[in-house]
Amino acid sequence: MAIREQAFSTIASVFKMHGAEALDTPVFELKETLMGKYGEDSKLIYDLADQGGELCSLRYDLTVPFARHLAMNNLSAMTRYQISKVYRRDNPSKGRYREFYQCDFDIAGQYEPMLADFEVIVVLNQLLDKLDIGTYEIKFNHRKLLDGMLDICGVPAEKFRTVCSSIDKLDKQTFEQVKKELVEEKGLSVETADRIGAIVKKRGSPFEILTELKAEGSKFLENSGSVAALGELDILFQALKEANCLDNLVFDLSLARGLDYYTGVIYEAVFKGTTQVGSIAAGGRYDNLVGMFSGKQVPAVGVSLGIERVFAIKEQQAKDRNQVVRATDTQVLVSILGKDVISASKLVTPLWNANISAKMKVSKRVMDHITFAKQKGIPWMVLVGESELASGVVKLKNIELNEEITVSREDYVEELRKRL
Amino acid sequence: MAIREQAFSTIASVFKMHGAEALDTPVFELKETLMGKYGEDSKLIYDLADQGGELCSLRYDLTVPFARHLAMNNLSAMTRYQISKVYRRDNPSKGRYREFYQCDFDIAGQYEPMLADFEVIVVLNQLLDKLDIGTYEIKFNHRKLLDGMLDICGVPAEKFRTVCSSIDKLDKQTFEQVKKELVEEKGLSVETADRIGAIVKKRGSPFEILTELKAEGSKFLENSGSVAALGELDILFQALKEANCLDNLVFDLSLARGLDYYTGVIYEAVFKGTTQVGSIAAGGRYDNLVGMFSGKQVPAVGVSLGIERVFAIKEQQAKDRNQVVRATDTQVLVSILGKDVISASKLVTPLWNANISAKMKVSKRVMDHITFAKQKGIPWMVLVGESELASGVVKLKNIELNEEITVSREDYVEELRKRL
Repeated sequence: MAIREQAFSTIASVFKMHGAEALDTPVFELKETLMGKYGEDSKLIYDLADQGGELCSLRYDLTVPFARHLAMNNLSAMTRYQISKVYRRDNPSKGRYREFYQCDFDIAGQYEPMLADFEVIVVLNQLLDKLDIGTYEIKFNHRKLLDGMLDICGVPAEKFRTVCSSIDKLDKQTFEQVKKELVEEKGLSVETADRIGAIVKKRGSPFEILTELKAEGSKFLENSGSVAALGELDILFQALKEANCLDNLVFDLSLARGLDYYTGVIYEAVFKGTTQVGSIAAGGRYDNLVGMFSGKQVPAVGVSLGIERVFAIKEQQAKDRNQVVRATDTQVLVSILGKDVISASKLVTPLWNANISAKMKVSKRVMDHITFAKQKGIPWMVLVGESELASGVVKLKNIELNEEITVSREDYVEELRKRL
Repeated sequence: MAIREQAFSTIASVFKMHGAEALDTPVFELKETLMGKYGEDSKLIYDLADQGGELCSLRYDLTVPFARHLAMNNLSAMTRYQISKVYRRDNPSKGRYREFYQCDFDIAGQYEPMLADFEVIVVLNQLLDKLDIGTYEIKFNHRKLLDGMLDICGVPAEKFRTVCSSIDKLDKQTFEQVKKELVEEKGLSVETADRIGAIVKKRGSPFEILTELKAEGSKFLENSGSVAALGELDILFQALKEANCLDNLVFDLSLARGLDYYTGVIYEAVFKGTTQVGSIAAGGRYDNLVGMFSGKQVPAVGVSLGIERVFAIKEQQAKDRNQVVRATDTQVLVSILGKDVISASKLVTPLWNANISAKMKVSKRVMDHITFAKQKGIPWMVLVGESELASGVVKLKNIELNEEITVSREDYVEELRKRL
């Protein structure tokens, strides 16, 4: 939890630097709000029992609730962040939980093309840099380029989304496995699947792949969607270059993203270190999602960071450095050698009033107190037995140095404050 | 949200000063974990749909999940805090929501009697003082005293809990209404109900009521549970007096608390200001709850603050003071008079790198930029048109003062930093 709080604070400060306001949405949405947004993953949505009233489901991500919020409140622009939990009926496995935090940053509204997309990618870079998790790579693609590719390969338009779901598995499966699914389950011809296979293996630095796709004779130039996508990516990559955010970017034509709602750029950040945690952040542009609720189009682009995977990396880093993370930072233990709760309250109150973190312990055995302080990592004790009570003094004991001094009851708060 | 974040930070700092570690529990618990813990309010629990696997419910409070956590992990002591949402199938009304935050602080473990109870009440006082919500009152009672009273009045032991549920309504209903329920629904005789009525109207300063209940001839001295309770309250009130936490306490024999699990002191904080929000915090001792899960008794005491009601008060305070709470604190708007996203990225990146909160806007109309900055309360603009681009300068414009200066592109970050 201590690591987590530190990470949340870092993340929120990046979001705020980009002018995002915090938004909090309910944990459950109307079931119908979530239907038809997540492709094949919709089966992982948790429903609430029908106890009368509306049918509800637990939120599956923070993007759909954000879009619903914009639509319901008739907002045409908002830059918001949200750090909240989402719920998926998944089989828990390493780095995959049924309940986990997402940290989302989204820019909704009509802006000059690529302006918002640029800022979101900068935010993603800043998040990963400031969290200091080590080497990472941001895989990059564009839905319109992907659709253009499928069109070029001969896939009928109505199969674009389901074929994308298969392509999306290429980070975990071989092309042979995916090809089998494309042919046997999705009904593509072997030739079409192979044509897809030849293109999706293209990956490299942004301008390198961009140049290849725009080269004379490229099939992509024959598809209007792809041409638009290549124009957008050109502006975006130039802007990102100015912001020094291009080094970690990999243009990867196999990146498809499973979710239905993306319409433009898509990306996924992958940690390259020794702790294998897979994708740590992902996002993209979704220009039609708000309109699905309100009929009024509000273009939007965003990114979602899965913080549990970041924690896994940070914990491993702390372990590697033999770093001990204390769950609390109590400074003083008020130790009464006896059974006297009222004396304890007299001695602890001035510490709390001075904003000094303090605990009390009442026990006749001195070793109980010392053992407790050591266990909790509390550096100082205010030790009071019958003789101290009688003479109006207290003993201040430093646990680590095993040193103690006797001071008057008027002075112990000030003496402690000097030493903390 | 800005008010909320400020309040959460204040609350967490009080909890940490008392050595509490943060705990996060899942939003849903096994349904059976929540059964039989909340008395008549159990009907307000949200269940998840049966989609295969375990039957689960959304958490109703943070106390039962904490007890379950202690039991599951075989912990015999823990001081924890948790700031999380809970869920109740209630009819939403003023200050009552279906989803709301609770801020809980609990001390579990075997301590000298009243030591932990004392600290929890101090925490409650500090929370309410530091949140600065105005005058409040903490109603105070003891479950064993209440049980003793019911025994004295002739209520059979098996009806104690259900009669308590009725008494608990005395803050919203007249005694006549509650008496009707006691006689017609709970099956008490009119005489028994009237005897209860005579006692529950006792309320006053802690030592005053304590003295009355301990006076010679008091029926409470004939009941062993009540005698124990009076002894505990004596120690507790003395300790609280030392901590200056007795002034807001009212010993109120009508305070019953609806929940089943309390076994000792119980309390409820009520705001006394003009914004009517009812109870803002409540808690008590629950020594048997952990044992219900593990069979191993772990005594515990805690308090839960309902932060939405605090927000309602704080928002009213801000309104009364004509205080404007900005949702974001963006310092600079990078305004490109044109359509040039790449120039915007060049100009904004150094600001972000200098940790200056900045937004970009690309538009040919100067007034678009100024209107936007004013709407968002952004104090500074970096204004760049074609002529500035050509000559390598930018205009810095202060919106409020309506002043602008022209500086070179090498210096604008430093110039802004000086002025922010």
